[in-house]
Amino acid sequence: MKTYFDCIPCFLRQALDAVRAVTDDPRKQEMILRGVLHLTSQMDLKDSPPSMGKRIHSLIREASRNSDPYLAIKERCNRFAHDLMPWARRTIESASDPFECAVRLAIAGNILDFGVQRVFDEESARKIIEGVLHAPIDLDAIRQLHSEVAEAKKILYLGDNAGEIFFDRLLIEQLPCERVTFAVRGAPILNDVTRADAVTCGLTEMVNVIDSGSDAPGTILEDCSVEFRAHFTAADRVIAKGQGNYETLSDEDAPIWFLLKAKCPVIAQDLRCENGALIVRWQHPTGGEQKQRSILTCQETEKAGEDPIIRH
Amino acid sequence: MKTYFDCIPCFLRQALDAVRAVTDDPRKQEMILRGVLHLTSQMDLKDSPPSMGKRIHSLIREASRNSDPYLAIKERCNRFAHDLMPWARRTIESASDPFECAVRLAIAGNILDFGVQRVFDEESARKIIEGVLHAPIDLDAIRQLHSEVAEAKKILYLGDNAGEIFFDRLLIEQLPCERVTFAVRGAPILNDVTRADAVTCGLTEMVNVIDSGSDAPGTILEDCSVEFRAHFTAADRVIAKGQGNYETLSDEDAPIWFLLKAKCPVIAQDLRCENGALIVRWQHPTGGEQKQRSILTCQETEKAGEDPIIRH
Repeated sequence: MKTYFDCIPCFLRQALDAVRAVTDDPRKQEMILRGVLHLTSQMDLKDSPPSMGKRIHSLIREASRNSDPYLAIKERCNRFAHDLMPWARRTIESASDPFECAVRLAIAGNILDFGVQRVFDEESARKIIEGVLHAPIDLDAIRQLHSEVAEAKKILYLGDNAGEIFFDRLLIEQLPCERVTFAVRGAPILNDVTRADAVTCGLTEMVNVIDSGSDAPGTILEDCSVEFRAHFTAADRVIAKGQGNYETLSDEDAPIWFLLKAKCPVIAQDLRCENGALIVRWQHPTGGEQKQRSILTCQETEKAGEDPIIRH
Repeated sequence: MKTYFDCIPCFLRQALDAVRAVTDDPRKQEMILRGVLHLTSQMDLKDSPPSMGKRIHSLIREASRNSDPYLAIKERCNRFAHDLMPWARRTIESASDPFECAVRLAIAGNILDFGVQRVFDEESARKIIEGVLHAPIDLDAIRQLHSEVAEAKKILYLGDNAGEIFFDRLLIEQLPCERVTFAVRGAPILNDVTRADAVTCGLTEMVNVIDSGSDAPGTILEDCSVEFRAHFTAADRVIAKGQGNYETLSDEDAPIWFLLKAKCPVIAQDLRCENGALIVRWQHPTGGEQKQRSILTCQETEKAGEDPIIRH
């Protein structure tokens, strides 16, 4: 997904939240914000939003000399998710379709995202997670996902955020674990999941865990390690969690299931869904055909005089 | 009022709305947005937000070769306000305190502001205006304003937006008109009021109308004409409408009554009021003392470890 103009004010809002998380010194905050404005003025809009996020948060980490500004938030999210696990397991066990319930909870965990939301209110988070159990979702897609993962030889599961990873584990327990590789980010970025979180939630004892080799808050393949790319190419099913993975992989010609909650109007427009919708979406690999179709669609849209930019 | 960090994402959001209003060409939109990002990266945060607004919208007008991008919106606001006038006059005539009612309506007109709001929905606007008639307001301040304008020798009334100017006229009808000078902006900026709007609503036939000599969406005194500054200095009461005039004059040591609706959390924090509050506020001239007090208060705030920046 390319960067829309509407992402720009949002980059600045996210950067502002981040500089406040890393330093109380207004002079440092100002210096970093000026740097972010300068970076943004030069960005290539054909790049995905996480590509800009990577650069912005790298600048913030360097300027603040804090290599993991979201560590405390990640720990809090992990604790919060950990404490919900007994309830979540009971919910799956008593569900008429445990796989569907586990998919719902994995998507529900996606609300623990500090790139998008600004405040973490545990009470509201709990209510939203419970709400996801009964919200509209594509049940046919879930059934298809279920049958495909049962047959898949190599499943690459791309994690998203701390806290959320506990919910991912619940879904992974429904998969053929011996064929699953779980991928975390290569270095701390926002509250995205790293190897430490995979250890915390016990995933390293269940499945093979690799990292992307990149500090992008998504999966920018050309920025990932050779090892990661080999896993990505070898997988006959990729499960990509969250907005960052969608934004960076939505134009890739690969067998990807996207599981996420659309949490901003730009992504909702790109996904052609309502903001807030639960997404279980299969991206058919087409050997190049799909990309061409996307380009055609884009040209057709332009011809029709439709503004490709979101207004909200 | 200085520019707060939280104003920065808002500048970008406003610029994005504005570039979409002036051109449908995505390349031009991108070029202008990059220019705005570059400008913002170099701005002096000690300047008020309208100082930045002036530069941003000047860049947009130049790049789009459109000297008055908000002309159609201004005409629409004027028509909308014009059509409400029979109702508004009846409301004032039947009010137990016509002056208070006129002040309320003048503040109500301040919702017609396209620097802050993004969509103009006439039905909602009408409801908000009606709501202002019964909303909490400082009645003592209104009584004080009433007695002061009765005694004032020279009243300078600083207009704000098109449409709103019709409501200003209703308040001016309650003032000693022969002692009132009404000021408009020196050139088109956003949907701010210019001489053309003063003519449209008939104010030029009622009172002396001058312009600020500046295209800032507020009153940056050093950017105003000598003639305007002479009027400002000579006035024993200034009535300053709207956020732009507040942001640019809140640190001036002058006898100003601010009438506005606080429409963003940054201004609400600066005014120490709830967002959405109706403001009737007297700024005592102190011959320099006040500025010193503000500085002291600011230092005290910093000492107390309070974050001077809004979080929202």
